[in-house]
Amino acid sequence: MAFSEFRPLNEKSLVEYIKATPSLSSKIGDKYDDLKIKEVGDGNLNFVYIIVGASGSFVIKQALPYIRCIGESWPMTKERAYFEAIALKEHGGLCPQHVPEVYHFDRTMSLIGMRYIEPPHIILRKGLIAGIEYPLLAEHMSEYMAKTLFCTSLIYRSTTEHKRAVAEFCGNVELCRLTEQVVFSDPYKVSEYNRWTSPYLDHDALAVREDDILKLEVAELKSKFCERAQALIHGDLHTGSIMVTRDSTQVIDPEFAFYGPMGFDIGAFIGNLILAFFAQDGHADQVNDRKIYKEWILKTIEDTWNLFHQKFTALWDQHKDGSGEAYLPAIYNNPELQKLIQEKYMKELFHDTLGFGAAKMIRRIVGVAHVEDFESIREASIRADCERQALELAKTLLKKRQEFLSIGEVISAITHAQL
Amino acid sequence: MAFSEFRPLNEKSLVEYIKATPSLSSKIGDKYDDLKIKEVGDGNLNFVYIIVGASGSFVIKQALPYIRCIGESWPMTKERAYFEAIALKEHGGLCPQHVPEVYHFDRTMSLIGMRYIEPPHIILRKGLIAGIEYPLLAEHMSEYMAKTLFCTSLIYRSTTEHKRAVAEFCGNVELCRLTEQVVFSDPYKVSEYNRWTSPYLDHDALAVREDDILKLEVAELKSKFCERAQALIHGDLHTGSIMVTRDSTQVIDPEFAFYGPMGFDIGAFIGNLILAFFAQDGHADQVNDRKIYKEWILKTIEDTWNLFHQKFTALWDQHKDGSGEAYLPAIYNNPELQKLIQEKYMKELFHDTLGFGAAKMIRRIVGVAHVEDFESIREASIRADCERQALELAKTLLKKRQEFLSIGEVISAITHAQL
Repeated sequence: MAFSEFRPLNEKSLVEYIKATPSLSSKIGDKYDDLKIKEVGDGNLNFVYIIVGASGSFVIKQALPYIRCIGESWPMTKERAYFEAIALKEHGGLCPQHVPEVYHFDRTMSLIGMRYIEPPHIILRKGLIAGIEYPLLAEHMSEYMAKTLFCTSLIYRSTTEHKRAVAEFCGNVELCRLTEQVVFSDPYKVSEYNRWTSPYLDHDALAVREDDILKLEVAELKSKFCERAQALIHGDLHTGSIMVTRDSTQVIDPEFAFYGPMGFDIGAFIGNLILAFFAQDGHADQVNDRKIYKEWILKTIEDTWNLFHQKFTALWDQHKDGSGEAYLPAIYNNPELQKLIQEKYMKELFHDTLGFGAAKMIRRIVGVAHVEDFESIREASIRADCERQALELAKTLLKKRQEFLSIGEVISAITHAQL
Repeated sequence: MAFSEFRPLNEKSLVEYIKATPSLSSKIGDKYDDLKIKEVGDGNLNFVYIIVGASGSFVIKQALPYIRCIGESWPMTKERAYFEAIALKEHGGLCPQHVPEVYHFDRTMSLIGMRYIEPPHIILRKGLIAGIEYPLLAEHMSEYMAKTLFCTSLIYRSTTEHKRAVAEFCGNVELCRLTEQVVFSDPYKVSEYNRWTSPYLDHDALAVREDDILKLEVAELKSKFCERAQALIHGDLHTGSIMVTRDSTQVIDPEFAFYGPMGFDIGAFIGNLILAFFAQDGHADQVNDRKIYKEWILKTIEDTWNLFHQKFTALWDQHKDGSGEAYLPAIYNNPELQKLIQEKYMKELFHDTLGFGAAKMIRRIVGVAHVEDFESIREASIRADCERQALELAKTLLKKRQEFLSIGEVISAITHAQL
C-alpha cells in the first residue's frame, strides 16, 4: 500500500502501512496479533506512534503541515521530516551510540520509522526537574557534539562535499526562519507571542527590549546563525531533545538541522543546563534542598565543555592529514602552528557557545516557548525570582562573552548570580 | 539550429548559431553581409567573439571545459558560464550602469550573448599600467559594490530569498575551490604552481611559507570565504575584470560568483589598486616619474572605501523598514542603535576588506597567477623591489588588519612602505 499523496495516519491505516513496508514489518517479525500501538506525540507538531510487537518495536513519527504554539496555529512545511531523516542518518552514521537508528523514511508521507527509545529512558529535562543525576551525560553529549560537528565541518570534509550538503539543507529554510524569529527577534521586540511571569518580570522583559548593547550583540549572533555554514548542527539541542537513562543518552528530533554555527548546538545544551540550575531553588523542598544536585549540574556543564574541547581537538589531531580542506597539512603541519590554530578555533567556538547559549536562555524566559523547568514551579513569585537570576546571567554572558577565558569562569559567574 | 549537446563554436558555426537565435540576430538587424567577427579571448579559458554588424553589436562568450594556467591544463566545469550568466543578470538588475546586459544564455552550449563593451573601453589594469587617470572610477566602483553587495545581503533580503540563492550558487563549487587553492593555500606551501621573481624573492617566498602568524590569519580568512554566505559577490573583482573609459566603468567576468564575504570583492579591487601603486616605480621614466599618478591611485583607494561606506549605509538607511531580515525595524528602529549597528557592521567589513585585499596581493607575488602591473616591468631586480614592498605591506595589512581604524591609516601605511 504505497500512498501517492500525503495523508495523516490513524491507528488503523498505520497497521496497513506497516504491513506494506518490509523495513518496518520485519522489525516486528510480521506478526500483528499482539501488536501494541500507542500515540505519544503531543498531537500538535507531529504524530508519534510507538509500535511494540512480540519480537521487536519501533516508532513512527509523522510530521503535520503546521506547528501549534500556545494555541496559535502556524503553517509549517511537513518537509521538515525529510531534513530530520537525513540529519538522523548523517549524525547517526557519525555517532550511532547516541542517535536512534532510522529504519524507514517516506518523503511523500513525511514519515520516519525509527528505533523506539524504550523505558526507562525519559526526556532529560524531566530528569533534571526530578533531580536525577546522569553520571555519563557530559561524556555522552560531548562525544555526540564533537563527532557530529567535527565530521561535518571543513576541518574534516572537502569543499565539494560541504557545499553539496550546505545546498541541500538550505531547503530547511522554514525551520531556520522559525528559529530566527523566536530566538533572535521576538524577545527583543513587542510581539504577540512573547510572554513572561507577569507582573513580576514586566520590567525585566522591557529592559531586554531596551538594551541597545544586548541588541547589538544579538544581531551579530543572528548574522552568524543565518550566514555561517560551519557544520551540520542539530539546531534544537535543548534538554527536551535528549532521552536518558543512567547509562544511555539518545539525541532525538533534529528537524531544525542545517549547516550553521557549531556554537548554536553546544550553547543550546549548556544554556538549558544553566536554566535547569536556576530552576532548582523552585523545586527544593524539606526533603531535598537540591544543593548537591546544583553542584552536579555545574560539574556537568564544566565537564561538557572540557570533554568536548578534548574530544574535538583529539579528532582534529587524528584527522589532520585527512581530506579536510580548512587546514591543509602542507601548510599547518608543524606542532606549534597546529596548537595555535586549535587554540584560536576553540576560543572563538567557546565565545559562540556562550553567546548562543545565552540567547537560548533569554528566549525561554521572555519569548514564546518556555521550559518546564520553570513552568513547573507553581508559585509565580518564586518562579520569577529563579527566572530573573537566569535572565541576568544570560545578559552578562551574551554581552561580555569575549571576556570569559574558560568554562571555570562561567561556572563562577553562575554561582555568583544566585541570590 | 538548437544544439542538443555542447560543442565549441568556430567562426562559421557561430554565424549559424546567431541566425537561429532571435535574441542575438535581432541585435544586428538580421543582416549578415557586412558582419565583422573577431575572436578576442585568450583561447585558454573561454572563446570570446566580438560580432559587429551594420546596425548593432554584441559579444559571444563560450566557456570551455578546462582552464589553462601557465601551460598547465586544469579541467574546469563549463557550468561556470551558467553562474556567470545568472550573476550578470542579478548584478545587472541591481546596477545596470556598470554591468553589461545579457542578451542570451544557452546552458547546454555554456554560451552567453551580451553587450559589447566597445572601444575606447580598455581593461582597467592596462590603463593603470599606462598611467591613465579615471576620475570617476572610485565613484563608479563604490556604487557597483554598494548596490550589488547590499541588495544581495540579509540587510535587504528575506531569509527565504537568501537561502534559495545561496543553495543555487553552492553549485559553483569548482570555481570556489580554485580560489581556495590559489589565494588561500598555494602561496603558503610548496606548490608546483607557485612562482616569483627568482632569485630576488626566494627568501621572501620562503618567509611567507614560514610565517606562522600569517598562516593563522589566512586560515581565518579562508574559513570566512568558505563558510560565510554574506552576499552574492563577484568573486574575482581585480582590475582585469573591469573595463573603463574616462566616463564609463563596466564590471565583467563574474564566473567566480557565489554567496561569500563582501570584503572579498572590496578587498580584491583595493588590493589590486595597491599592487598598481607599487608597480608605478617600475614604469617611471624620464618623461614621467609617476609621482602624480601614484597620488591619484592613493586618492582612488581612499575615495573607494569612503564612498562605498557612504553609499552602503545610505542604502541601509533608505531600506531600514524594508523586508531585510537581519535588522528588523521593530528591534533596531531608533537612530542611536541604528548608528551603533552600522558602525559595528562597517568596522568588521573594513577589516575583512583589508584581510582579503592583502591575501589577494600576496598570491599575485608568490602564487600561480601574477599581474601584468609587475610582469611588464622588464628588469627583474626592479620588479622584485616593487613586489617586495607590496608583499611586506600586504603581510602587515593581513596580520594587523584589526588595528587599522580608517582608510586614511591604510594610505599612510602604503606611503610609508615605499623604499
